Amino acid sequence: MIEYQLYFFSWSKFVNGFVLEFPEFSKLPMIGSRMSLLAISRKYATSATNVKERLVIIGTGWAGFKLLSKIDTKRYDVVVVSPRNYFVFTPLLASTCVGTLEYRAVTEPIRKHAKNFTFFQSKCEQINLEKRQLTIRSALEDASYDEHIVNFDKLVICCGALTQTFGIPGVKENACFLKDIGDARKIRNRILDCFEKAKQPNVTEEQQKGFLNFVAVGGGPTGVEFSAELHDFIYEDLSKMYPELMSKVTITLIDVAPKILTNFDASLSDYAAKKFERSGIKIRTGTKVLELGKEEIKLHGGENLKYGLAVWATGLAPNPLIQSTNLPLDPAKRLITDGYLRVLDKDNKALDNVFALGDCAVVKDAPLPQTAQIANQKGLFLARTLNNTAKGKQLESQPVFSYKEIGSLAYVGDWKAIASLRIRDQKVHKAGFQAWILWRYAYFSMSVSWRNKVLIPIYWLVASIFGRNTSRFQ
Amino acid sequence: MIEYQLYFFSWSKFVNGFVLEFPEFSKLPMIGSRMSLLAISRKYATSATNVKERLVIIGTGWAGFKLLSKIDTKRYDVVVVSPRNYFVFTPLLASTCVGTLEYRAVTEPIRKHAKNFTFFQSKCEQINLEKRQLTIRSALEDASYDEHIVNFDKLVICCGALTQTFGIPGVKENACFLKDIGDARKIRNRILDCFEKAKQPNVTEEQQKGFLNFVAVGGGPTGVEFSAELHDFIYEDLSKMYPELMSKVTITLIDVAPKILTNFDASLSDYAAKKFERSGIKIRTGTKVLELGKEEIKLHGGENLKYGLAVWATGLAPNPLIQSTNLPLDPAKRLITDGYLRVLDKDNKALDNVFALGDCAVVKDAPLPQTAQIANQKGLFLARTLNNTAKGKQLESQPVFSYKEIGSLAYVGDWKAIASLRIRDQKVHKAGFQAWILWRYAYFSMSVSWRNKVLIPIYWLVASIFGRNTSRFQ
Repeated sequence: MIEYQLYFFSWSKFVNGFVLEFPEFSKLPMIGSRMSLLAISRKYATSATNVKERLVIIGTGWAGFKLLSKIDTKRYDVVVVSPRNYFVFTPLLASTCVGTLEYRAVTEPIRKHAKNFTFFQSKCEQINLEKRQLTIRSALEDASYDEHIVNFDKLVICCGALTQTFGIPGVKENACFLKDIGDARKIRNRILDCFEKAKQPNVTEEQQKGFLNFVAVGGGPTGVEFSAELHDFIYEDLSKMYPELMSKVTITLIDVAPKILTNFDASLSDYAAKKFERSGIKIRTGTKVLELGKEEIKLHGGENLKYGLAVWATGLAPNPLIQSTNLPLDPAKRLITDGYLRVLDKDNKALDNVFALGDCAVVKDAPLPQTAQIANQKGLFLARTLNNTAKGKQLESQPVFSYKEIGSLAYVGDWKAIASLRIRDQKVHKAGFQAWILWRYAYFSMSVSWRNKVLIPIYWLVASIFGRNTSRFQ
Repeated sequence: MIEYQLYFFSWSKFVNGFVLEFPEFSKLPMIGSRMSLLAISRKYATSATNVKERLVIIGTGWAGFKLLSKIDTKRYDVVVVSPRNYFVFTPLLASTCVGTLEYRAVTEPIRKHAKNFTFFQSKCEQINLEKRQLTIRSALEDASYDEHIVNFDKLVICCGALTQTFGIPGVKENACFLKDIGDARKIRNRILDCFEKAKQPNVTEEQQKGFLNFVAVGGGPTGVEFSAELHDFIYEDLSKMYPELMSKVTITLIDVAPKILTNFDASLSDYAAKKFERSGIKIRTGTKVLELGKEEIKLHGGENLKYGLAVWATGLAPNPLIQSTNLPLDPAKRLITDGYLRVLDKDNKALDNVFALGDCAVVKDAPLPQTAQIANQKGLFLARTLNNTAKGKQLESQPVFSYKEIGSLAYVGDWKAIASLRIRDQKVHKAGFQAWILWRYAYFSMSVSWRNKVLIPIYWLVASIFGRNTSRFQ
């Protein structure tokens, strides 16, 4: 080992990037590069007892972020690979589409929330389980330093999922999704754009109605909360700036299912539907979208609907990275794991060094939906288990993952929400203003940093007193 | 007149966009279109005594925004043409480049700050003084409703200026400017990008030093305040996330002049220079930039400087719109006006219906620099004069514009500023913490809306307690 250390000591003068990442020279050989020398040297490094195991986490969503924030970086050499350098507090993302909250009130920069770890702002392009290597590509502006190999001892796959488009033509090109801050920015600008477009001269009334038809496709919590936030924005703020356009505004919520919010109790989803009806939000359930043109939605049955903005939130689609692993997948194309979140191979055997959690994974024989709550709990579970393992406790002597359902909340507009809670093994349903207080309190208390715990209630207050800011910039 | 009203009444069914803009039918003929019919009809409309004069304002900078906020829209039919739907409080723009303030804390949506006026989010492409017409082009996402003619009775040109590049090759392509929110967003992302780039594997120490050389070109208040804010950001926030990179960071302030902040008293500019020296900001005065490559600045004398971000703030360049008017211009290519801000024609005669103010104009024989303070005062002056004129008071019986110098302030980092004030006709110079208190207080009290008056001090507090948010998104 000493020989290698000396070798790298002299070499480090030329490749200083490594020295920065790995101030202890004994760790140097653990990062791979295009030069096979380093990849080869890894086994020597990991055989030394004083060397920490390298744990590579793919993704900074709920699962990855929670794991990172609790994993013991004194016991693991943690490397995070993600194209974004922040975590998004997704339950409040819809609020940022209309300016109830500013974008950074729902983000947490990951370098701030953990110390002594390595972060590559890169996209993982390939996983080689045999060689224990990832191929990653830079997600930074300048792509000239783009492709690298990262070796791992343990791998945690929590790269999430994409938005499901069902291959419907035009959706990828013309719809806005709602999974990240960039999406929310695009939506906010588009809303303001639609109103300004309707105010241009030479625009006919019919065109105005088209520009001002805001469509959400998908009657789950994302589509519902977006419609509710948009309704608040339009009727609390934009109505004062564009009073003469108000009669031309429509918000339409489309779903192929016969009801919206099917994951909630029927009494709650009925409440939401009635609330929307009173607010003038058109619910079109049992409606299938055939094509999304640039300005027109083709519906099953021959109807064409002009629109200005379409937000697409019809559930999740598998991440191509998962499909490229050649590991067995469940029908929803998720990796299958055992109760310790270890990925199962073709022979149903758990790989001892590869874990998967979040939207891209499911526990065998215990299928759960793809929600933030489950990803969160799995992230915390895995951190605890891995920390114990590093302390010498056998993995299989520890309890397996079990999901504790806390409840579901959804905002339905006008200071009203619906809440489905599990209290002492009993389901409690609430709807209206009280549920809204609960909704705000729950998300306020779940927000991660003190910075955002201060800013979020201030934004809520400022928006309700002074209104939302409607500046539109790129 | 009645005949025309009836005519437009029936026609309005088909071109409803006009009806929205102009609910009173008598106003209808006043907006032009490609159809010459409307343009012709205008003279009939304006000859009617009960019709307000149409006042068209080009621009929503300091001059245009202040004019708009004070002009009496009951006496003028006000139309604003600007590619952006907000006003930027420019003195605090540099703070948004690093997240001390969020972008929307320094913007004011113009539709919120005035009522009963027409706004076109468009760029003015041509001014036809003879026909009293503007050609405007939509600045919205979709350009299919793009070009329109707008007629005016009175025109106010306050379209501002561009950043001066002196034709130096590569500046337009590779530099970041600092005049609008989009610029600040680009700079903030680029700073974070540079640090992440330096953390990629395989990056040499020399490359790191290049990525982490932040250059401001132009030693005026913009370049100085940006350098100061950047210094705070790096040493208060980024140093905690990238401690091992700190020894490689350089901030360089380049100016061709022998000193920085030449518009301040020598004692103050010396203070700023010494403060920068102590902070480790390199000042390179008397240095000429020959070319700005993608990663390298070529300096006069053969030196090449690698850099990661270059912010270009070397003064103002004329707006092409001004040059297209064929009106006489001063040596700095600004429109020349009389004391009432009326534009002078080739015979030195004031045009009675065309005004110019802000960075694109100068009062004859009373040249003043292009600052926000002067644009602000001119905007308020013109609103007052035009309101009086509409009440029947002759323009020339009113006093001409006279500039009241209040003072200049500049932030130099580390809770220190310089201030040059005029108190009872005496110049008072202050530097250090006291001047910083003054700087913050002055800009806090000058910020326009109550919304921002609440948010700005909160952001200041949050940044100093919890640090700035370093999430990077498009």
